Amino acid sequence: MDKNMQQYLDKAQVLIEALPYIQRFNRKIIVVKYGGSAMVDEELKKQVIEDVTLLKLVGFKPIIVHGGGKEISRWVGKVGMEPQFINGLRVTDEETMEVAEMVLGKVNKSLVQMVEELGVHAIGISGKDGGLLKVEKKLSNGEDIGFVGEVRQVNTDIIYDLLEKDFLPIICPVGLDEHYNTYNINADDAACAIARAVKAEKLAFLTDIEGVYKDPSDPSTLISELRVREARKLMAEGYIEGGMLPKLQNCIDAIENGVSRVHILDGRIAHCLLLEIFTNKGIGTAILHGEESRYYHGE
Amino acid sequence: MDKNMQQYLDKAQVLIEALPYIQRFNRKIIVVKYGGSAMVDEELKKQVIEDVTLLKLVGFKPIIVHGGGKEISRWVGKVGMEPQFINGLRVTDEETMEVAEMVLGKVNKSLVQMVEELGVHAIGISGKDGGLLKVEKKLSNGEDIGFVGEVRQVNTDIIYDLLEKDFLPIICPVGLDEHYNTYNINADDAACAIARAVKAEKLAFLTDIEGVYKDPSDPSTLISELRVREARKLMAEGYIEGGMLPKLQNCIDAIENGVSRVHILDGRIAHCLLLEIFTNKGIGTAILHGEESRYYHGE
Amino acid sequence: MDKNMQQYLDKAQVLIEALPYIQRFNRKIIVVKYGGSAMVDEELKKQVIEDVTLLKLVGFKPIIVHGGGKEISRWVGKVGMEPQFINGLRVTDEETMEVAEMVLGKVNKSLVQMVEELGVHAIGISGKDGGLLKVEKKLSNGEDIGFVGEVRQVNTDIIYDLLEKDFLPIICPVGLDEHYNTYNINADDAACAIARAVKAEKLAFLTDIEGVYKDPSDPSTLISELRVREARKLMAEGYIEGGMLPKLQNCIDAIENGVSRVHILDGRIAHCLLLEIFTNKGIGTAILHGEESRYYHGE
Amino acid sequence: MDKNMQQYLDKAQVLIEALPYIQRFNRKIIVVKYGGSAMVDEELKKQVIEDVTLLKLVGFKPIIVHGGGKEISRWVGKVGMEPQFINGLRVTDEETMEVAEMVLGKVNKSLVQMVEELGVHAIGISGKDGGLLKVEKKLSNGEDIGFVGEVRQVNTDIIYDLLEKDFLPIICPVGLDEHYNTYNINADDAACAIARAVKAEKLAFLTDIEGVYKDPSDPSTLISELRVREARKLMAEGYIEGGMLPKLQNCIDAIENGVSRVHILDGRIAHCLLLEIFTNKGIGTAILHGEESRYYHGE
Amino acid sequence: MDKNMQQYLDKAQVLIEALPYIQRFNRKIIVVKYGGSAMVDEELKKQVIEDVTLLKLVGFKPIIVHGGGKEISRWVGKVGMEPQFINGLRVTDEETMEVAEMVLGKVNKSLVQMVEELGVHAIGISGKDGGLLKVEKKLSNGEDIGFVGEVRQVNTDIIYDLLEKDFLPIICPVGLDEHYNTYNINADDAACAIARAVKAEKLAFLTDIEGVYKDPSDPSTLISELRVREARKLMAEGYIEGGMLPKLQNCIDAIENGVSRVHILDGRIAHCLLLEIFTNKGIGTAILHGEESRYYHGE
Amino acid sequence: MDKNMQQYLDKAQVLIEALPYIQRFNRKIIVVKYGGSAMVDEELKKQVIEDVTLLKLVGFKPIIVHGGGKEISRWVGKVGMEPQFINGLRVTDEETMEVAEMVLGKVNKSLVQMVEELGVHAIGISGKDGGLLKVEKKLSNGEDIGFVGEVRQVNTDIIYDLLEKDFLPIICPVGLDEHYNTYNINADDAACAIARAVKAEKLAFLTDIEGVYKDPSDPSTLISELRVREARKLMAEGYIEGGMLPKLQNCIDAIENGVSRVHILDGRIAHCLLLEIFTNKGIGTAILHGEESRYYHGE
Repeated sequence: MDKNMQQYLDKAQVLIEALPYIQRFNRKIIVVKYGGSAMVDEELKKQVIEDVTLLKLVGFKPIIVHGGGKEISRWVGKVGMEPQFINGLRVTDEETMEVAEMVLGKVNKSLVQMVEELGVHAIGISGKDGGLLKVEKKLSNGEDIGFVGEVRQVNTDIIYDLLEKDFLPIICPVGLDEHYNTYNINADDAACAIARAVKAEKLAFLTDIEGVYKDPSDPSTLISELRVREARKLMAEGYIEGGMLPKLQNCIDAIENGVSRVHILDGRIAHCLLLEIFTNKGIGTAILHGEESRYYHGE
Repeated sequence: MDKNMQQYLDKAQVLIEALPYIQRFNRKIIVVKYGGSAMVDEELKKQVIEDVTLLKLVGFKPIIVHGGGKEISRWVGKVGMEPQFINGLRVTDEETMEVAEMVLGKVNKSLVQMVEELGVHAIGISGKDGGLLKVEKKLSNGEDIGFVGEVRQVNTDIIYDLLEKDFLPIICPVGLDEHYNTYNINADDAACAIARAVKAEKLAFLTDIEGVYKDPSDPSTLISELRVREARKLMAEGYIEGGMLPKLQNCIDAIENGVSRVHILDGRIAHCLLLEIFTNKGIGTAILHGEESRYYHGE
Repeated sequence: MDKNMQQYLDKAQVLIEALPYIQRFNRKIIVVKYGGSAMVDEELKKQVIEDVTLLKLVGFKPIIVHGGGKEISRWVGKVGMEPQFINGLRVTDEETMEVAEMVLGKVNKSLVQMVEELGVHAIGISGKDGGLLKVEKKLSNGEDIGFVGEVRQVNTDIIYDLLEKDFLPIICPVGLDEHYNTYNINADDAACAIARAVKAEKLAFLTDIEGVYKDPSDPSTLISELRVREARKLMAEGYIEGGMLPKLQNCIDAIENGVSRVHILDGRIAHCLLLEIFTNKGIGTAILHGEESRYYHGE
Repeated sequence: MDKNMQQYLDKAQVLIEALPYIQRFNRKIIVVKYGGSAMVDEELKKQVIEDVTLLKLVGFKPIIVHGGGKEISRWVGKVGMEPQFINGLRVTDEETMEVAEMVLGKVNKSLVQMVEELGVHAIGISGKDGGLLKVEKKLSNGEDIGFVGEVRQVNTDIIYDLLEKDFLPIICPVGLDEHYNTYNINADDAACAIARAVKAEKLAFLTDIEGVYKDPSDPSTLISELRVREARKLMAEGYIEGGMLPKLQNCIDAIENGVSRVHILDGRIAHCLLLEIFTNKGIGTAILHGEESRYYHGE
Repeated sequence: MDKNMQQYLDKAQVLIEALPYIQRFNRKIIVVKYGGSAMVDEELKKQVIEDVTLLKLVGFKPIIVHGGGKEISRWVGKVGMEPQFINGLRVTDEETMEVAEMVLGKVNKSLVQMVEELGVHAIGISGKDGGLLKVEKKLSNGEDIGFVGEVRQVNTDIIYDLLEKDFLPIICPVGLDEHYNTYNINADDAACAIARAVKAEKLAFLTDIEGVYKDPSDPSTLISELRVREARKLMAEGYIEGGMLPKLQNCIDAIENGVSRVHILDGRIAHCLLLEIFTNKGIGTAILHGEESRYYHGE
Repeated sequence: MDKNMQQYLDKAQVLIEALPYIQRFNRKIIVVKYGGSAMVDEELKKQVIEDVTLLKLVGFKPIIVHGGGKEISRWVGKVGMEPQFINGLRVTDEETMEVAEMVLGKVNKSLVQMVEELGVHAIGISGKDGGLLKVEKKLSNGEDIGFVGEVRQVNTDIIYDLLEKDFLPIICPVGLDEHYNTYNINADDAACAIARAVKAEKLAFLTDIEGVYKDPSDPSTLISELRVREARKLMAEGYIEGGMLPKLQNCIDAIENGVSRVHILDGRIAHCLLLEIFTNKGIGTAILHGEESRYYHGE
């Protein structure tokens, strides 16, 4: 057999190997928190969108929840605003919120555009549309830092409506409080709230780290499988610090409220979503409920 | 009967008088091009949204298509951009398009927010979502003035999907060309294209004038009913000038492609939409197909 | 602004004020017991039908349950029948029942006709159709007074079927017992049984009194809001007499079996239904479950 | 085998023989004009209702259209009205119409009751309900004989709605003109109009004659199969007289407007409907479109 | 009346008498275990298929589960295979299973063919299709006798799908174990498992005996009605022997798991199914849950 | 990057490359004629089933039509039958037909089993089920060679029903004539008739040759793209011989009756279906309607 033919057969083999994974997640909801480097690097951005679109096309029901990343800061500067701080925390005043919403909207439509270009129909919405995300003010250590909200209610109707009509929902984390004021929501929090509300099969966070470490200074301590019980212990014993703390808390909340599995993935790796779902490479950290293995039976 | 009671009875009477109008437009699509002063004045803005929300609640199927108005210019200045001109026309370069899309997105969500506050579920989309508006570059007298597009295809599926799920669609006029580049679309053009595509019962333009005049310098020449035939004659004879020319052309296109009736309304009048639909006040100019009266039989 | 224009704006304002009410009762079932003077006076009759038809058109799901009023007595006389009495009560023998059913059928179709004339599709049925009302003989103080039944079962399927197909159901209170004999049912009882069975949002009795009085001889003692607890107390203490006793008992039964609110309205007031639903006039007596106000939050 | 067992086997055999007929008319609409002696004799009445209910249960879609027969005259007398005549024809003035509608309503509900007793859900409506029958005044030889209408429009929606919900529709021939006045309709005409509008598979008239005769005075001239072409010839040559003339005209109208087959049956024969449909007895006269036999292929 | 006419009327009468039975079993699932002589005799075969097809046409939802009977042994011989035995029991080795499956498939399609010939659409499936029957190995007194399985799971989806699409399902008792090996299933067991899974209204076994006897040697001890309680007692006291033991156990299992009534019928009697369902002949033995009579109330 | 990681990334890349193909054939029907070596070799068999199952899982609607291949001859011998010949052609007498149907049924269920093992629900039917294939006798050069039929009608209802319920239909080529006799059908003919009837997007024949040759003796003359026009020319000029003649005729019939594209594939190549659909390898011969390339635009 010529070498060329062998290459084609190898390709067919890869597709065949995807079969059990495609079958397992058929019609299952997968929430992808999209952020970090994967939103900055154009090549990575393209790959994430390709991954999610493929998931849609092979019969899964992916939902993207994205942040605005560094774009927000860039535009806040561009319009000549002076950042305000309380106790060292940036305050989201009305003007900042306005810019943030505009930037999130821009990012949202650019993602819609990329999905549409791949031939799949997407709808980009914020938490305002259809009353998706209802929030209340979130204090930071008791301090009012402006229009920063935490989700208190998710109206899943609009999500189910869009999924039923076969759209790929792309959601930016802005919501309304009971007086219909606009609030910014941390994208991790929004993704977690949505995944809980729809009882997602998977919630995957695209981050800029390899996963959860027992000792962040030692790459060899990367944890591949982390049970809720173990995660709590790590947190209690002070192994987890900084931005990972609320993220891990979100993971635990999600698992304990009906999400089957949560993943902290390294968004800097090309096609990390496909690798996680379609191979047994085992990248990043999988947060599990009980004692099961992250690898499915028989793999 | 005390005077107070009489007031209540009068109110009941107004509702009863609305009955035949409610019945006539039951489940009919009404496209509202929202722009001009009605987008600037907060009181007028509130009234337009109340009107459209009421139309939705009594069983019509309204769709809002809006522009960005003066906000775009304001933000273009705010971010310190230098406007470019070709033959005296502002050029929509990539950077301007970026700001325009952000501002349109902001306006879009603020309208969603107002509708949601009235208890009705809205979804704000642009022409990118679900492939709604496909465009090609629009030249201005043969000159390329940048990312300004004209609609060449409307994917009505997304509109029907949203209407079926009982959402009020709010659309901003941004679209994609065949290479998936972003284009700005004149809001009048977008409203007209959408109304044609869904064979709307009504297309109403909220403007800053009272209607079409035979002689714009003479308010007494306001035309209440204008047949397509007459409109063509007025245009041919040079009575129509400036911004009214393309608007009237849009009206004619709409009528000749399945829209039952088009209205040029004075958006500066409070509740002008309700007045047009629920009373026989006859405000603005009604563009009609043939010889029928703008007033329905028996009114 | 000219005075004429002001009138139109006032009308628009009335419609806008109806918005929260329209929203609140959207798709809710409202059972209207139609009887008394409002069935005799042609003008009032027209107004009741206009009211109910408007409720239908703006998205509510009204159901009319009507009696035959004085027409039955008139026709019993007309065909030369001798009324029979037991202990002073009129006996509904087979012949009387036959006439009563005929008259109720005539009234039923005349209401259908009026609704159809307003452009809404109605279907007039009796409790025989689709097995809607199954009854058993109702004794009066232990005495058999003929074919007078009380409802023991409501087949709600037919009601939901008609509502789903967007008809306005108009029901006359005749039912069948287990041996398929025909029985007359008190219209109040029938309306109450139906409202309970479909868990109506509202049950409104159109009566010939202003409402419930603490002292019927003193108009100033009209009760605007009456809690179930208070109603029971009034009854126990003997304040309620005559025809109001069973009516109030029906109100309590309805409230305690899933109907959200019951109203005793003065059917002699024009458009009393609209006034009750669309204004905060507060006519008649509202029977409430607990301590809430009859006026909705924020009105 | 004992004689008892043989009887049971004979019964099973009859059921098996019904199999091809049940299959042929599965989900087909069969309009039965019910009138004449079959409405007077209690035993015949019961049998007709049994027949129609059986048709319903085995999967056909029967519709009953009935008249009021001699009951109307009886009640007109009962209420002491003086009949009016124009050119020898009874005039249906408003008062007569009122009584007629009441009697038709009574008959209608009694049929509903009998069907319900057999465990099938029926809904009795008139041509007023759901706008079923729209009429215009029918003159008799140019004379106005009052509220006698001919059908000019059938709103089939209500029929399809009721059939979809699995009800057996029972229809009395009363309709509204464009001013919403009530009119009596000849039951044959109403049945014919309805059968045409729904493209019924069969239209069966229950009459008080054996069928169509070439010579009414000679029973041996009963016609078993009559083609439209032949029927026209018989009429043209004066063989058809009296009440049979309009009836035959109705038959021809029905056949020429999409009804597959029309039958004139002798309603005085027990279970004549079942005999016609489930056996090859060939009772009455079958009106056929072309040259086909009234007996289906292979029977 | 001539004698011929009387015959027709008698036929109509038989149909009318079927009315209450047709009504009672409307849309009810009836599982028929088809086997024994009724599968060998061509005349009986035709009658069984006629019976089941009639049940389908009049609105029931029959399901046939059939065995292969003597055909399997015939073909095992025809292909020259040597039967194997363990402890006197025939062993279903792989080769025997292959032949058995082929024969069952042949029988299956011949039944489909007969139903199709009667104008009803059937689909013949085995327990492999759609994962209908999942089995595990069944030991015989602890001995492995090869590919003989007992049902451990029924995937009712495929049955409901076929019934919804109005097909008559014809099922042969072959299933797959968890390793997707093919197993033969006793047809009685398969019918019982399916009837339990779909909560059938009736499960009827066509057998070669008259029913259950208290003393099999004395035909006069045939039991017409047998309560579960009594059946257990008979079994415990040793009255039941041979093939009747597992059959009766199946009957009890079915009744105790949601099947309303089980019948052991004599398949050698023509149209025994129709006789059981449409008459009060009371053939065979009816297994009942509690103290009710096998004859329905009022028959 | 380590080599292991590169392998995973390569796999992800293969999946991403499949994206446009998955999108193009989303919900499209693909009929696969399965036969030849691919049915004999266990490894090839497994690969074909994997391919078809993958097509199903990624959203296509594949249908398998299979023959019985050499198994039929093997079993005809096994049961000791003497083959009959007319003019050198094997005669399908009743006994042969019986064996053929049994073998086809066995093959059918073994394919169902393999698909089920991969976690997808299949239903195996023959042309008898649901009246799928109606045939008439096919003569061979005017000679009656027994129960060999050609398809004269395809009842697509059953196919659409099974596809709607998400089953993978596996069809064996047996049908019934108008007298409900069983006939064998050439599997190519059956696949072609079914593909035409459902207007399949693709019809793929798995064969034991590489494709169509201009000169069968010269492998270098393999034709990659063949227009209908060219195919006719090749046939007319005598380049096509033997079994390829009727196969090519089937291809032309299919293309001319609504099938978009037909492929003659070499079933001896592993995963030839996937290679054809998901790569631009261009294996076998593609039969095209007009002048388009077999490679889709932009590939």
